[in-house]
Amino acid sequence: MDFDNINRTELAQLGEFGLIKHLTQHIKLTHQSTIKGVGDDAAVINNANLQTVISTDMLVEGVHFDLTYVPLKHLGFKSVAVNLSDIYAMNAEPKQILVSIAISNRFSLEALEELYAGMLLACNKYNIDLVGGDTTTNQSGLVISITAIGTAKFDDIVYRNGAKESNLLCVSGDLGGAYMGLQILEREKTIFKDNPKIQPDLSGKDYILERQLKPEPRKDIIDVLKKLAIKPTAMIDISDGLSSEILHICTQSEVGVELYEEKIPIDQLTFDTAREFNLDPTLCALSGGEDYELLFTIDIGDYEKIKNVKEFTIIGHITNKAKGCNMVAKAGTVHELKAQGWNAMQNKA
Amino acid sequence: MDFDNINRTELAQLGEFGLIKHLTQHIKLTHQSTIKGVGDDAAVINNANLQTVISTDMLVEGVHFDLTYVPLKHLGFKSVAVNLSDIYAMNAEPKQILVSIAISNRFSLEALEELYAGMLLACNKYNIDLVGGDTTTNQSGLVISITAIGTAKFDDIVYRNGAKESNLLCVSGDLGGAYMGLQILEREKTIFKDNPKIQPDLSGKDYILERQLKPEPRKDIIDVLKKLAIKPTAMIDISDGLSSEILHICTQSEVGVELYEEKIPIDQLTFDTAREFNLDPTLCALSGGEDYELLFTIDIGDYEKIKNVKEFTIIGHITNKAKGCNMVAKAGTVHELKAQGWNAMQNKA
Repeated sequence: MDFDNINRTELAQLGEFGLIKHLTQHIKLTHQSTIKGVGDDAAVINNANLQTVISTDMLVEGVHFDLTYVPLKHLGFKSVAVNLSDIYAMNAEPKQILVSIAISNRFSLEALEELYAGMLLACNKYNIDLVGGDTTTNQSGLVISITAIGTAKFDDIVYRNGAKESNLLCVSGDLGGAYMGLQILEREKTIFKDNPKIQPDLSGKDYILERQLKPEPRKDIIDVLKKLAIKPTAMIDISDGLSSEILHICTQSEVGVELYEEKIPIDQLTFDTAREFNLDPTLCALSGGEDYELLFTIDIGDYEKIKNVKEFTIIGHITNKAKGCNMVAKAGTVHELKAQGWNAMQNKA
Repeated sequence: MDFDNINRTELAQLGEFGLIKHLTQHIKLTHQSTIKGVGDDAAVINNANLQTVISTDMLVEGVHFDLTYVPLKHLGFKSVAVNLSDIYAMNAEPKQILVSIAISNRFSLEALEELYAGMLLACNKYNIDLVGGDTTTNQSGLVISITAIGTAKFDDIVYRNGAKESNLLCVSGDLGGAYMGLQILEREKTIFKDNPKIQPDLSGKDYILERQLKPEPRKDIIDVLKKLAIKPTAMIDISDGLSSEILHICTQSEVGVELYEEKIPIDQLTFDTAREFNLDPTLCALSGGEDYELLFTIDIGDYEKIKNVKEFTIIGHITNKAKGCNMVAKAGTVHELKAQGWNAMQNKA
């Protein structure tokens, strides 16, 4: 990434307040409930009889992203997207975000503008008000911390702890793509390091690169469920990998699960690329993470309503806690599900 | 700071979820409005007819704090305190916080426990629910990002933009102490670096060290104002320095100000220590920052109610915008007020 382009403006020229003013000048507030956005000590949100739903996520350079291949605009978009995903996973509607960033003077104003442009693109697409935040310096890497705030009716909110025996386990979209996109980017980075004259070969990998660089939170799934008059019994978004998220639901709901390997939705490009890297495609779906799809359980009585819905797939069912959390492999063998999380994240750095 | 004590537990031993579970085990939820705290995708807060007030602040190692002399427990307390201060500055009551931290493996679990103990101490003292957050790794320094959420009645909220001509300008407590505390700590650090055998000499400096290391947000001022049935016309907390905050109020309210140097409350120890460092005590109050006192304007009709209140001081009055923002010095000369902010912050690093 080239921070030393000819349009470089030093941050020191603007000063803190000048920088904030500059970065926030394009923010538009659209919700009637946003009483006060950026510009005071705190944001004020009007709530009638709705619940306020709040979530926060931090993205750290060198841990969650690598600026040698992640464009700042995509990073801005993604950092908002992953926060919205948490709110949708509550079956709530995100409405506001607060954005805090710590930056070193390695970044020019133009670089920061790119980052904000990506954030505002996501805000625009998902109808979100950016209502506040904090901007500070950092000695080395870039750190982005976003808090998302949403609303939902009391009875509509879906937690992780409501899964019941015989519930169907469903997942939206397909899995493992974001992880394979990351593998492609890491490979090209290594090749580029060895020989900077070789241009990165990303041809034909568009889908999985987009899954990694510009994930879309599944607002549409929330809408589909509402239309079908289905309220999931439990729901979570897939940030750490299918396996880890299933275990979260099972632990908090005090239930077991039977997951069918053959039912896990994996895109053909993800599958082929995993094979190209000598990786097991199923393992990529189970432990890769960052797909930001929604994983949820529904009452078996809702089966008729969903059997023809193409936006999500039934991948298993909830069992008694004593039966444990298992995956039935394609070969018929049974494997205990294991969590990744921290370790998986470490490997991504 | 010694991170390599004999009780060291490697973070890797716990894993991400184990760490979160460990760190959050002592959290107690007290507000009826906290429907859901840590443990799901987002926190849920019930709001009847109150406004939700939200603010966020990020603290970065090497920029906002130096772990060579800031104990982690104090850092935890302060990081919560500065966020609550923003909510009080809206004349609102903080009720929940979300805490995100990025840490390197340089920290042991015991070190993190200290940090959290300080945070929970502040939560306990100010009756705050810690309802969520994110914990991630960082390659180098410690980054703490906190979002505070509060409530207020619509008519009670005080913004920065309501100051009117002839309003009285008031400030709580005394100013410049936090900055002088920092000077002491920086001096002792330099001496220690040159000769590690010399023990730091902090005797007699307790008050200003506490101002720097463990600031208290002024909940009591909000309570006093309520008791006196006074609603300030504008209010802000002093994080960047008196001068900068006065200018925020004047800019947003489109008014001028006349500040009297002789009225600025400066503690004797702050004054004497400034002299010891060959610094102008008034300048420390104007540009030092981090005092976390409340600066506010009130209608002159409220003068009778406040003239005997000892918790705050009248330091000037609001004028017509055309008259500008000025300080009348002790010698009678008039000086234009200038903002600091970014630059002041840089110097603190």
